[in-house]
Amino acid sequence: MGSESILFREIHEQPDVIERFAQLEQGPVRNLAAGMRGAGIRQVVVAARGTSDNAARYAQYLLGANNRLPVMLTTPSLFTLYRQPPLFAPDTLVLGISQSGRSPDIVSVLAEGRRQGCVTAAITNYAGSPLAEQADHLVILGAGEERSIAATKTYIAQLYAVALLSAHLADDAEGIAMLEGAPDLVRQTLSMNSDVERLAERYRYVRDCVVVGRGFNYSTAFEIALKIKELTYTLAEPYSSADFLHGPVSLIEPAFPVIMVAPQGVLLPELKPFVRQLRGMDAELLCVSNDPELLRLGRTRFPFPTVPEWLSPLLAIIPGQLFALFLATARDFDPDRPRTIQKVTETL
Amino acid sequence: MGSESILFREIHEQPDVIERFAQLEQGPVRNLAAGMRGAGIRQVVVAARGTSDNAARYAQYLLGANNRLPVMLTTPSLFTLYRQPPLFAPDTLVLGISQSGRSPDIVSVLAEGRRQGCVTAAITNYAGSPLAEQADHLVILGAGEERSIAATKTYIAQLYAVALLSAHLADDAEGIAMLEGAPDLVRQTLSMNSDVERLAERYRYVRDCVVVGRGFNYSTAFEIALKIKELTYTLAEPYSSADFLHGPVSLIEPAFPVIMVAPQGVLLPELKPFVRQLRGMDAELLCVSNDPELLRLGRTRFPFPTVPEWLSPLLAIIPGQLFALFLATARDFDPDRPRTIQKVTETL
Repeated sequence: MGSESILFREIHEQPDVIERFAQLEQGPVRNLAAGMRGAGIRQVVVAARGTSDNAARYAQYLLGANNRLPVMLTTPSLFTLYRQPPLFAPDTLVLGISQSGRSPDIVSVLAEGRRQGCVTAAITNYAGSPLAEQADHLVILGAGEERSIAATKTYIAQLYAVALLSAHLADDAEGIAMLEGAPDLVRQTLSMNSDVERLAERYRYVRDCVVVGRGFNYSTAFEIALKIKELTYTLAEPYSSADFLHGPVSLIEPAFPVIMVAPQGVLLPELKPFVRQLRGMDAELLCVSNDPELLRLGRTRFPFPTVPEWLSPLLAIIPGQLFALFLATARDFDPDRPRTIQKVTETL
Repeated sequence: MGSESILFREIHEQPDVIERFAQLEQGPVRNLAAGMRGAGIRQVVVAARGTSDNAARYAQYLLGANNRLPVMLTTPSLFTLYRQPPLFAPDTLVLGISQSGRSPDIVSVLAEGRRQGCVTAAITNYAGSPLAEQADHLVILGAGEERSIAATKTYIAQLYAVALLSAHLADDAEGIAMLEGAPDLVRQTLSMNSDVERLAERYRYVRDCVVVGRGFNYSTAFEIALKIKELTYTLAEPYSSADFLHGPVSLIEPAFPVIMVAPQGVLLPELKPFVRQLRGMDAELLCVSNDPELLRLGRTRFPFPTVPEWLSPLLAIIPGQLFALFLATARDFDPDRPRTIQKVTETL
């Protein structure tokens, strides 16, 4: 049932989507990077909601670490309801990320950025959208129509766009080459996780869980949690491991499910003792990782190939998407028709 | 049992704490405002975790709306684990907010800000703390020792500090005068909510809930959710009403508890239809409000006095703190000894 869904098909289209993006959008991304350099951009303000906001979180870490740019996730209500938008310094890029390009609050932030004389850019699936109209630089996702209400292929295309922008900004030929290999790595990740349908059965009666990630994969934790909420109506709260220790760790009791996103990289030595602490508290651990030792700490294991940490969010999300899909079908929910939500949400 | 706890006592100390703050800290706050003006500050970067991060969220909206300053909540791991901190524009204030002033990641952000030549400031309860040492401007909360592990009186003092800074930056004599009246308004809120112990009984067997707020009270939603998690081990996820509609609204089923923070002000006309939509889905509504009509929509009602919206977070948090405390005792948990967490959490 799950594997006949539109959502399953779109999850499996993802390698082709980013392959096409890499072919068609190098030019626009390179132009945006050149435009940012030309304008002496020193900080980036991002407006986004839902899944796109999780791509923005990736941008916050990646452009911060690799390009040393402060990235601020903005608060749209200051632009719409309060009508008291912050005044941006002239060396600010205002970037909107939106699948539809139609949420009025996100459009308002770009329009205000333009009014203030900032450089504006949009990453969206629709060239003719109101968001695109407000953008000096336009990056089109080219993911094709996303029919599933839960966004997957547009998310990975947004991540890819952000990663490619970061590599072009840094003139990082090696990074650009690595991104060319990403479609095959996503394919590999899909086949490494072909057993998720079976693994999800165990969690049929889970009522709530947390998803923990940090750094580049803070975005992954948020996006896995969002897919689980949208598709399975299970409360899934995303956390950074550091914030988790400042209070919410008290939630943990035996069998409480914790999805850990913990790839190889700079954070792993921090995350290992954290995972061991959770094991000591008898939490049920579901590990998304490419580190054999970390994976072994999990009761349930979602592997993906070895890559540099900055690239791992494009792979780590894959088992999370599949898990949310098959947890939905384990509960006899239709993954293509999540209750209550629509594809395009227009908020102010 | 709850009313004999240290936590109950500290919740009730809050009017005195901000009264003392208003007496002792006008000078330092005025100096910080003058220093910001003198340095031509055009944006603020805040580093904080846990409860202090929720005060930072208030700063993001208040300094944005009233002072038109872009406020960025930063990502400490870029400074500590990745060691690739963003490079701030010289007109950036780097502000650390921390009860203890001792979390190494927060201290690192200020130290890096100073290394880059930015103006730095700290809002903390401890003048001799490592955070205070990195600050050009120091605002001391003066809340006295906070013995309870769940922070309450230091949170309200942090909110007060932020509000006073905003008023001084705007030379807003009316705002400053209103803040002088805040201690009495907090006293009034405490007495308006003297029945929370009884009201909390109904929620003895709740397993999870969401807390919704937006704008100035986005902070309140986060802080109520954090208190509930810390003290009662109930999964409580905070949301902006706009983000909630972009997916998580599908969680709602009959009897699902939603704590709505919805005061009078600019957002109320947006929030009312949202609350009615939730009622239409038979959610169990707990309303924190000073609007009679909005309160009537709630199955459980937490009122507070009429104030301008920007001031409401100092009052709206009070019933949330009491609710978390008495939900803990309704479950026979000791509010003074939440499991697992310590008073000072040192994260990297």
